[in-house]
Amino acid sequence: MAKVTPRTLSGFMELLPADQMKMERMMAVLRDTYSVYGFTPLDTPVIESAEVLLAKGGGETEKQIYRFTKGDSDLALRFDLTVPLAKYVAAHYGELAFPFRRYQIGKVYRGERAQRGRFREFYQADIDVIGDGSLDIMNEAEIPAIIYNTFRTFGFQRFKIHVNNRKILNGFYSMNGMSEKAGEIMRTVDKLDKIGAEKVRLLLIDEVKMLPCKAENVMDFMAISGTNAEVITALSRYRGMDPTFDEGLDELIAVTAHLKEFGVPEENFAIDLTIARGLDYYTGTVYETIMTDHPEIGSVCSGGRYDDLAGYYTDKKLPGVGISIGLTRLFYVLQEQNLLSDEVVSSPADALVIPMTEDLGAAVSAATVLRSAGVRTQLYVEKKKFKAKMTYADRQKIPFVVLLGEDEIQENLVSVKNMLTGEQQKLSAEEAASLIKAAIDARNHASLVRELP
Amino acid sequence: MAKVTPRTLSGFMELLPADQMKMERMMAVLRDTYSVYGFTPLDTPVIESAEVLLAKGGGETEKQIYRFTKGDSDLALRFDLTVPLAKYVAAHYGELAFPFRRYQIGKVYRGERAQRGRFREFYQADIDVIGDGSLDIMNEAEIPAIIYNTFRTFGFQRFKIHVNNRKILNGFYSMNGMSEKAGEIMRTVDKLDKIGAEKVRLLLIDEVKMLPCKAENVMDFMAISGTNAEVITALSRYRGMDPTFDEGLDELIAVTAHLKEFGVPEENFAIDLTIARGLDYYTGTVYETIMTDHPEIGSVCSGGRYDDLAGYYTDKKLPGVGISIGLTRLFYVLQEQNLLSDEVVSSPADALVIPMTEDLGAAVSAATVLRSAGVRTQLYVEKKKFKAKMTYADRQKIPFVVLLGEDEIQENLVSVKNMLTGEQQKLSAEEAASLIKAAIDARNHASLVRELP
Repeated sequence: MAKVTPRTLSGFMELLPADQMKMERMMAVLRDTYSVYGFTPLDTPVIESAEVLLAKGGGETEKQIYRFTKGDSDLALRFDLTVPLAKYVAAHYGELAFPFRRYQIGKVYRGERAQRGRFREFYQADIDVIGDGSLDIMNEAEIPAIIYNTFRTFGFQRFKIHVNNRKILNGFYSMNGMSEKAGEIMRTVDKLDKIGAEKVRLLLIDEVKMLPCKAENVMDFMAISGTNAEVITALSRYRGMDPTFDEGLDELIAVTAHLKEFGVPEENFAIDLTIARGLDYYTGTVYETIMTDHPEIGSVCSGGRYDDLAGYYTDKKLPGVGISIGLTRLFYVLQEQNLLSDEVVSSPADALVIPMTEDLGAAVSAATVLRSAGVRTQLYVEKKKFKAKMTYADRQKIPFVVLLGEDEIQENLVSVKNMLTGEQQKLSAEEAASLIKAAIDARNHASLVRELP
Repeated sequence: MAKVTPRTLSGFMELLPADQMKMERMMAVLRDTYSVYGFTPLDTPVIESAEVLLAKGGGETEKQIYRFTKGDSDLALRFDLTVPLAKYVAAHYGELAFPFRRYQIGKVYRGERAQRGRFREFYQADIDVIGDGSLDIMNEAEIPAIIYNTFRTFGFQRFKIHVNNRKILNGFYSMNGMSEKAGEIMRTVDKLDKIGAEKVRLLLIDEVKMLPCKAENVMDFMAISGTNAEVITALSRYRGMDPTFDEGLDELIAVTAHLKEFGVPEENFAIDLTIARGLDYYTGTVYETIMTDHPEIGSVCSGGRYDDLAGYYTDKKLPGVGISIGLTRLFYVLQEQNLLSDEVVSSPADALVIPMTEDLGAAVSAATVLRSAGVRTQLYVEKKKFKAKMTYADRQKIPFVVLLGEDEIQENLVSVKNMLTGEQQKLSAEEAASLIKAAIDARNHASLVRELP
């Protein structure tokens, strides 16, 4: 029979078992953390009508979209989780209670140019709070706590949540008569990290064609930094010059007021006037999250406040605030940077039960006891030499082997071997289950991400 | 702005939040149960090269497949999880340890005719054990335990795992000189449940063109039933007439020998000579799972032993055994039959914190305490009347409301109201967290599926 070469498309992540276990753990952390903040899980179709998915129209995304027909239906694969959310909220408006808080972790599709570290199929992990007509600023204040707890639970310690407010930026450009150039200025300022302040200042003058004094104004403004209190004091000097600015400043004050009660340490938080987020979409608070040791990766969790979730579907005004984690890319980066710990168990089982007699009854019973206690257990039943069985456990890094020979069966015990320490002891199956469960639980309390010292 | 009607394609399940919570719970049960039996999670792309996906070729599935081009790539959406598994094992053969045990819960796509209860996008939840060259019969013996525990953990009690062996059937047809008609006979016998024994007998004679005495033989054979021991005794009378039959009988004996040690009660298990499974694919033990009160639904978990997982990709002989649950359809049926319990918490949060003062500091702190304790907590921050806030909790069936008024803040306590009983008490935030956590844990120990008495 002619063979087809089994291959996976480029730009599509497919992990080996031990890595997949780590990915599953990241997803479990996301589900748990998002749930604890009162977000409900949603699952929308991967395929939607192209008309519905592209209702908002265009741009870069439309070129990348996977679109095709089936019968006479014009279909497309979702390219983010925001449009499906807009559709869902507009379609089910009468059946939902607002503010509506949902999380969704799902695959999205973009036919990007194939490139190392770029994915065409990737997971996004999103949360959004949607209001009906209005949405209080405190919803924006809560988001840093969610980001903080998510990344802490992953195991990160050295990361910073950068927060800005689009109204502050728009107000500042307006009071300086630069509103028309605001987009260009923001795109230039965005290069600060990469090319430095002096080059940005020159670009503002030479390319954006700003007067040197105005470019200076922008540079002075963007240089405002320090503790939250210091930044707010500095910003307060601009008060009274533009109503949008003042509104933005009040919102920023509200967002920073309760950080402590929300459990967010000040060292993991920074007001950063240089961030704006690419999309026109955002209207208030915006968020980025930077790994302190890896600023070159860019933001690993971003989002913001928007005023109109679903204007292309409904007349209802649905403002919201949300954040998104590009999970596949984050996982890829953590793997590349060697930041994923091996301490957490990533073997397919916690225990391998190895029978050493013809009759398997006792081994089956032992496996059943272990499983009832929640120990992930494999029963090795292939007819192989003892050494091959141990190699199987070794190769998969299964932490415990449970042996059942004549002696053990006669004594109604099992021999438990800790594969890490080599230690072996005879116990009842129930005792073995407790011993293994305790050891695994302890290891699984370790962080998945381990930052280098 | 012209509006596009927000709609979801027909044949695509999209659940409201409370139902989605129940679906999530079913998936959690599957992940946990499959893991406890030592299966490792896998996640393969939804999109594959059409050449790879259709390597096995055709049949009914090929007509239903979602296939399209992107650039110059001929692509398709997976229509099951077995072909991607075959691809994965063949592609990563050198990196895997065998037997390779994996589970996968993922969406698959089939452009079936739209029909109530038929889905074009649906979850399959599969497990498979793949051997390298050979695979011991004990792997087949373990499968009923996995099915039993999965359905018990869902909350089912009245279900039966039906088991047969294709070698017994093939051997029986061979010893009767009916091998050529075996396919036709099996398809006819499959109608037993629907049309009864007498009509099947007539069909065998009139349509399959069997001699009446041979049809009688088939009917007698298919009528064999009783306890495992009784069926095996009856089958033993055919021993020595066909080597394949004898092999199948030995396998059936092995599969039933350790049911008790595997923890499967005999009342949930039956040898059933009438089942064969549609596919040519299976070569040994085959499984179906029938809900006792709803036989009309057909099998809710099926599978079997096969000898050649990936022959179209590799020369390696990769025998395996696996089962699959059509999760979306199962969920749909459970909803339709009103078998999903409301006892399990399906609200977006366990507690709604309602501040009743201007300053939100105390409410934020209380929410943070609850969240740290694992209580799924929403903080209600919209500026609404008290009644509207309580209605919000009510409408979403949030079981506890935590109130913070002037008094509570002064006493450094919170008022906890149980929304089910109306009972209200003042506690510290920590005490409130313990109280709520205990109540929620108790409710979540309830079964998701509740069979009618």
